[in-house]
Amino acid sequence: MSKLWGGRFEKQTHHAVEEFTHSLSIDARLWECDVAGSIAHARMLGKVGVLTPEESSQIVAGLESVREELSSSSGQHSKLLNPGGEDIHSEIERLLTEKTGAVAGKLHTARSRNDQVATATRLYLRQEIEELRKELGSIQDWILDFADNNLDTLMPGYTHMQHAQPISLAHHFMAYFAMFQRDSARLEDCSKRVNIMPLGSAALAGTSFPIDRGMTAQELGFASVSANSLDAVSDRDFVVEFLSAASLVMTHLSRLAEELILWSTPEFGFVELDDSVTTGSSIMPQKKNPDVAELIRGKVGRVNGALVGALTLLKALPLSYNRDLQEDKTFLFEGLDTTRSSLRLMQLMLEGAQFRQERMKTALKGDFSNATDLADYLVRRGLTFRQSHEVVGGVVKACLEQQIGLEDMTLESLRQHSPLIEADVGAILKHRDVMEARTSEGGTSPSSVRFQIAEARASR
Amino acid sequence: MSKLWGGRFEKQTHHAVEEFTHSLSIDARLWECDVAGSIAHARMLGKVGVLTPEESSQIVAGLESVREELSSSSGQHSKLLNPGGEDIHSEIERLLTEKTGAVAGKLHTARSRNDQVATATRLYLRQEIEELRKELGSIQDWILDFADNNLDTLMPGYTHMQHAQPISLAHHFMAYFAMFQRDSARLEDCSKRVNIMPLGSAALAGTSFPIDRGMTAQELGFASVSANSLDAVSDRDFVVEFLSAASLVMTHLSRLAEELILWSTPEFGFVELDDSVTTGSSIMPQKKNPDVAELIRGKVGRVNGALVGALTLLKALPLSYNRDLQEDKTFLFEGLDTTRSSLRLMQLMLEGAQFRQERMKTALKGDFSNATDLADYLVRRGLTFRQSHEVVGGVVKACLEQQIGLEDMTLESLRQHSPLIEADVGAILKHRDVMEARTSEGGTSPSSVRFQIAEARASR
Amino acid sequence: MSKLWGGRFEKQTHHAVEEFTHSLSIDARLWECDVAGSIAHARMLGKVGVLTPEESSQIVAGLESVREELSSSSGQHSKLLNPGGEDIHSEIERLLTEKTGAVAGKLHTARSRNDQVATATRLYLRQEIEELRKELGSIQDWILDFADNNLDTLMPGYTHMQHAQPISLAHHFMAYFAMFQRDSARLEDCSKRVNIMPLGSAALAGTSFPIDRGMTAQELGFASVSANSLDAVSDRDFVVEFLSAASLVMTHLSRLAEELILWSTPEFGFVELDDSVTTGSSIMPQKKNPDVAELIRGKVGRVNGALVGALTLLKALPLSYNRDLQEDKTFLFEGLDTTRSSLRLMQLMLEGAQFRQERMKTALKGDFSNATDLADYLVRRGLTFRQSHEVVGGVVKACLEQQIGLEDMTLESLRQHSPLIEADVGAILKHRDVMEARTSEGGTSPSSVRFQIAEARASR
Amino acid sequence: MSKLWGGRFEKQTHHAVEEFTHSLSIDARLWECDVAGSIAHARMLGKVGVLTPEESSQIVAGLESVREELSSSSGQHSKLLNPGGEDIHSEIERLLTEKTGAVAGKLHTARSRNDQVATATRLYLRQEIEELRKELGSIQDWILDFADNNLDTLMPGYTHMQHAQPISLAHHFMAYFAMFQRDSARLEDCSKRVNIMPLGSAALAGTSFPIDRGMTAQELGFASVSANSLDAVSDRDFVVEFLSAASLVMTHLSRLAEELILWSTPEFGFVELDDSVTTGSSIMPQKKNPDVAELIRGKVGRVNGALVGALTLLKALPLSYNRDLQEDKTFLFEGLDTTRSSLRLMQLMLEGAQFRQERMKTALKGDFSNATDLADYLVRRGLTFRQSHEVVGGVVKACLEQQIGLEDMTLESLRQHSPLIEADVGAILKHRDVMEARTSEGGTSPSSVRFQIAEARASR
Repeated sequence: MSKLWGGRFEKQTHHAVEEFTHSLSIDARLWECDVAGSIAHARMLGKVGVLTPEESSQIVAGLESVREELSSSSGQHSKLLNPGGEDIHSEIERLLTEKTGAVAGKLHTARSRNDQVATATRLYLRQEIEELRKELGSIQDWILDFADNNLDTLMPGYTHMQHAQPISLAHHFMAYFAMFQRDSARLEDCSKRVNIMPLGSAALAGTSFPIDRGMTAQELGFASVSANSLDAVSDRDFVVEFLSAASLVMTHLSRLAEELILWSTPEFGFVELDDSVTTGSSIMPQKKNPDVAELIRGKVGRVNGALVGALTLLKALPLSYNRDLQEDKTFLFEGLDTTRSSLRLMQLMLEGAQFRQERMKTALKGDFSNATDLADYLVRRGLTFRQSHEVVGGVVKACLEQQIGLEDMTLESLRQHSPLIEADVGAILKHRDVMEARTSEGGTSPSSVRFQIAEARASR
Repeated sequence: MSKLWGGRFEKQTHHAVEEFTHSLSIDARLWECDVAGSIAHARMLGKVGVLTPEESSQIVAGLESVREELSSSSGQHSKLLNPGGEDIHSEIERLLTEKTGAVAGKLHTARSRNDQVATATRLYLRQEIEELRKELGSIQDWILDFADNNLDTLMPGYTHMQHAQPISLAHHFMAYFAMFQRDSARLEDCSKRVNIMPLGSAALAGTSFPIDRGMTAQELGFASVSANSLDAVSDRDFVVEFLSAASLVMTHLSRLAEELILWSTPEFGFVELDDSVTTGSSIMPQKKNPDVAELIRGKVGRVNGALVGALTLLKALPLSYNRDLQEDKTFLFEGLDTTRSSLRLMQLMLEGAQFRQERMKTALKGDFSNATDLADYLVRRGLTFRQSHEVVGGVVKACLEQQIGLEDMTLESLRQHSPLIEADVGAILKHRDVMEARTSEGGTSPSSVRFQIAEARASR
Repeated sequence: MSKLWGGRFEKQTHHAVEEFTHSLSIDARLWECDVAGSIAHARMLGKVGVLTPEESSQIVAGLESVREELSSSSGQHSKLLNPGGEDIHSEIERLLTEKTGAVAGKLHTARSRNDQVATATRLYLRQEIEELRKELGSIQDWILDFADNNLDTLMPGYTHMQHAQPISLAHHFMAYFAMFQRDSARLEDCSKRVNIMPLGSAALAGTSFPIDRGMTAQELGFASVSANSLDAVSDRDFVVEFLSAASLVMTHLSRLAEELILWSTPEFGFVELDDSVTTGSSIMPQKKNPDVAELIRGKVGRVNGALVGALTLLKALPLSYNRDLQEDKTFLFEGLDTTRSSLRLMQLMLEGAQFRQERMKTALKGDFSNATDLADYLVRRGLTFRQSHEVVGGVVKACLEQQIGLEDMTLESLRQHSPLIEADVGAILKHRDVMEARTSEGGTSPSSVRFQIAEARASR
Repeated sequence: MSKLWGGRFEKQTHHAVEEFTHSLSIDARLWECDVAGSIAHARMLGKVGVLTPEESSQIVAGLESVREELSSSSGQHSKLLNPGGEDIHSEIERLLTEKTGAVAGKLHTARSRNDQVATATRLYLRQEIEELRKELGSIQDWILDFADNNLDTLMPGYTHMQHAQPISLAHHFMAYFAMFQRDSARLEDCSKRVNIMPLGSAALAGTSFPIDRGMTAQELGFASVSANSLDAVSDRDFVVEFLSAASLVMTHLSRLAEELILWSTPEFGFVELDDSVTTGSSIMPQKKNPDVAELIRGKVGRVNGALVGALTLLKALPLSYNRDLQEDKTFLFEGLDTTRSSLRLMQLMLEGAQFRQERMKTALKGDFSNATDLADYLVRRGLTFRQSHEVVGGVVKACLEQQIGLEDMTLESLRQHSPLIEADVGAILKHRDVMEARTSEGGTSPSSVRFQIAEARASR
């Protein structure tokens, strides 16, 4: 098909330029959103009288037929699409023209490529955000069930990667529930700013045709129409906002992946990943590697990179539409694909993981994560916290020298550090008791975590 | 003051380590938020009986007195603060101890540095976001007034930096209004996730003291308390979310700054910045440079950099608190300070700017930005858009050869390209008419922009 | 083909995991480098006696045959490659096995996937850097010829986007020559650190087979072998170093692209891009858009993003090989492809560009870029520079009020500002004279630029 | 001091603008380099006759006196500097004027702020790179000595954070030696592009004064002068190049820090950091936290952020000098300070660290990192590697079921998996033997590592 804009030009576009500006291999996945946008536009044009009812019907029917055919021939990978086509929008126009003839040309009344592309991108992102939020919900549901079953599973709680205080495995995973909850809320907020329709802004300045943007918006399920046409065709904030939300999802997954890798080391041994999600080595017959967790950890780099790419793109760009903006989709789709597959694989990995409760419990032995509670004990016996901290620090030092745990010290030995210590101290030094005592809101005790779970379920 | 944790240690901290881990020069600005957090905590401890009423009152009175003294001695720059202090939190504890003696030590009951720092940071960011939104509102108000006065000021509308269609200066600036509106909404959404209280999470696992977190939260104006203590002490999502919102504000400012720089060139000449916001050259006596706009354009790099820094920080960090997190404040404060000062300076620059309406209008002469309307004219006379586009392309080519504008062509010449053109064509080729014809919602016609302004005022 | 590492596993790998860890679609382009590496390895194993001469010959012959077949069936896109294959290395092993049978298995002696992949990647990058340097050289050659022809083409020299002093178009473009010269030098330096052979490091610790790494390195043209096997399999510094060099190439291209876009505006009008490298609009018949320049400007975001991605990937990664590292290739290839195509298209765009000397010259009229020379004139007449600067500032202000240029002032008017000004002032206010006077090394005078060109030619 | 450029302006600069454009608090540290640059410039001006010998001498003497006074009053923090000053360059000019009177004004002949600032920045960076390379050398020397003493210290070698093959602690640390060696080489290469003198480029176009740039360059120790004046005043490549080299240094430190944190966990227990470089907890008396390592790990974010900031700054900036470039120093100094202090603290931490050889050795027990060697044994007995891998995989599975190590299996049990196994198998399953067998160049055997150390010492 010859170009639509040759009139003032004397030379053909250089083939290298066509290749360089080509975007079909990237944007083909927008096909369904583009068709939907065009159908709504054609209906509206018919309603307001810019097209005759017949023209409108013909175009709508043609587009529905294009949609049908693409749908039944693998969509964005359909052989109906010409790989040399400029972009998905011109491909669909070409297919429509094949179906309906000249009337197809009337579809482009009162719109331009600028608002058309922005509309299709927003429709696509809106639905993909919903899918991402479903993936997040799915992993959250897994966490809730897992937490329910691990309210009493003891493990070391870490700060600075040192044993700090004993916690439950349920509590540990509920921290990730909270992160994913924020992620989902952020995506929802982002979606509000995605779900605004630019269509009708035309090239940059609006149009003199008597269009009804509200009608098109309603048909497409947009919450509102964009307020300013210049902004509408040059706004890519929503790409940046989405990518930054996705970077945080990936950051959370990288933290969880890091822990799974760590816990899979023989030194920790807190988890055994399922054979089906690990790989071996062609050289070392003993190897069982947490490749999936490693790849997820690494893939946060892709989304952070896409975010930086999008911000670089927009820096100091004058109004309104500039061709630079075409690059937005590479970044957007990179963010969508990476985040979605990483969430899925994380869940698959978690579902098959065996958490080794015995190893976690053993790790607590002699780890002094009960020392805070000895200090609290002495405070209750009348010491200031500072005195008490000093005394317990001394006890810990003595234990280290003897290579024993706090719970292994005899009462006599303890009393050499402070005569305030009595036989009842035994009751507060057990790691389980320490964990169960932390009953404050948000704390690690089973009752507190049960409350967290209940609240979480209520919010889903 | 000797350290609070020496008991198990045999050596003093190396002075280079103290210097490296020191953060007072960064976090001193949190002083007022830290005091507020401590007062609320002390009151709650008194209420629930962990402290006696007297202890609680003494501590509260002591903190109020510390606040008073810091306030009246330049706050974060107060000489009361010891430059060698570790951080603002230990400095305030030191000052409190000087005032109240040993009872000060009881303030730290049922909290740790981990939740204390997170609380102060959130309180600070919450108030700073409000201030930023006020700055945004202020620049938006300027735009609304400016737009009101420039509904009829003609200028070229650009796509690809080429003249596309004539627009009004009001319409152009309303695009920035829309960007700042999104910025403000994003900051508001971010604030929801900032305004959650971590206090009471203690070191990582909650506490066994019978605290009432709801009460503390209410006193501090937090909308809710954090659900999970592990998450609460290690969550810095809000820093990333804020920085990404700030990056977009700065991106918008960089676009506007770019336009002001461009428009200040002798080639454009659309704006004359006020002498008070420009600088000269020590060498070239004629120079008047838009330094402020250039610096704003450059400073987007600072906030993008801070965003990347914060994301890098969090990548693959295991739970829960790790000292790496201390670095969050450098990034956060860089983002806050840069964005706020850039917004202020932008407004100052706009307030004094002289927009040269004559130059803008002259720029439209012979620029072919009325060509679309000639094409539309021919469509109304019966051509398909494609034929019409071809014809007008030919007209443009002829004009270029003769070095005249579309509006300068005689009717005869025009009719050589298409006999459908008649005398009434003159009425649609004037740039003002072209602009006024774009009456669609969000378009550039005065009526459309007036509607934008009214809606905008209603939303503020 | 069943996996090589199933022995200790009880379950098959999940198909979603295979998809997630799959990299063939990314790394297929390494096929030729992988074959080359394997041939050298097999020859060496034969030489040192780990393989018999017959085994070595069989494997080498098999690999040569694989190479031949892939080469004649579109290489990385060959139908011989199974799209479901794990990566290019296992695909080539599969093809070799089909050719030679069981002996193929001996190729993997004394190496592992870890050192094999790193070797192929380095071979590939080494050759691609050479190609990039050729592209840089090609654009530099264009600049030299262009500069030769434009030593006398006057144009405004800008600082702060304001006219500063007149320069020649040749001088302006020689600035880009200097940038590309540094780019080329940086890539050459980077190449030194790429051109080191990891092969023989095996999985991480070296091997007990009596291999001769020097021999393999020599056959493959590596300058040296890696010193430490742990480092060799986990080092991706060269990816980051390459990407940062590529980011600078793209930054330079973005600056040049920005200028071409700017100069293409009707307001500047300094350049007219060829029809063959611009595009029109489907709506606006007059449009001729510099899309290629815009895309190049935008694509710097891709490479900056890839750089950030690679740095994020490597942050805090423990030794030695981790699967995260597989992600390096996405970033590397993104950087290579984007930079190379952008360089090519930039040259294509420059080759067809028409620089409008008349517009550039006209832009100098009355622009005060000759004011510095009036100040210098007064210094030579005895004023201090400060006095002189003040006087000329006053002259400029007077000109602005009368809306005339410095060169348009009558001698009488000038003398009202300083009686030191005499008739000979006319000789120093002409823009051409101003330009020609700057004869210092690196300056804009034709003689200085001629010297730059000569030095540049000598360095190529 | 009133400004030097007021002549054409009618209004004073707004105080908020002065604050916004102010850079003294950032660039004060350039004071010594600025003075050095000015002295060389003044001498050259005297030599070529632009200044009289007396003027030149007066200025040089004045600058030496300024240097003396600043030097003896804490340099960049000197009270002689007026905090409200615009930047360090104008402050030094002010001090010089106080000393010498009007002749000070002649120093600015044939130069501008643009080339002056670039010159001082390059002088400063050149010396700081040397200092950084010394820090790298210092940590490398520590590694060499440490490696010398740990050639036989066994530890697990990891891939995918799983035990892969036994290595020596010396070998592990020599990997970091190799990284720092590349860092040093990269900085040296970067320095070549820093060590080029822009002075004499004046504002942008060179100068008409008969200056001798070669003479100035020689006095300042620059290897050459910049070739093109436009490029010279707008080139900040060297900032990006330095920051990317610094990002890699920090990346390496983040990897080492991560390992030290990991090895400090009770689960690993491979290292005990000295009390003097760790900190405790105000709450938990047992805590000993690796804060320094954590902060180093986090600080890589600062340098990555600065790199992104600098790249963002430069994107699409037209020639030549633009005020945006002033922001370069924030990024540069952030990179320099962070990298230097992190290197120092890392060395301090390493010097006091106790590596627990017993724990490392114990970790190898039953870890199957000797499995590869059993496979190799069977290959030598006639199996193909594939058969052998299968057999050993089965042995590993059996061991896992019995919860014993490979070395704990009886000969009979082993022979049930393959009758080829005989009594001599015992000799190859010991971890020490496995390590010592890897004698290939770059391998982990003591002889190989001794060779690495010797080569490394020779290169230092």
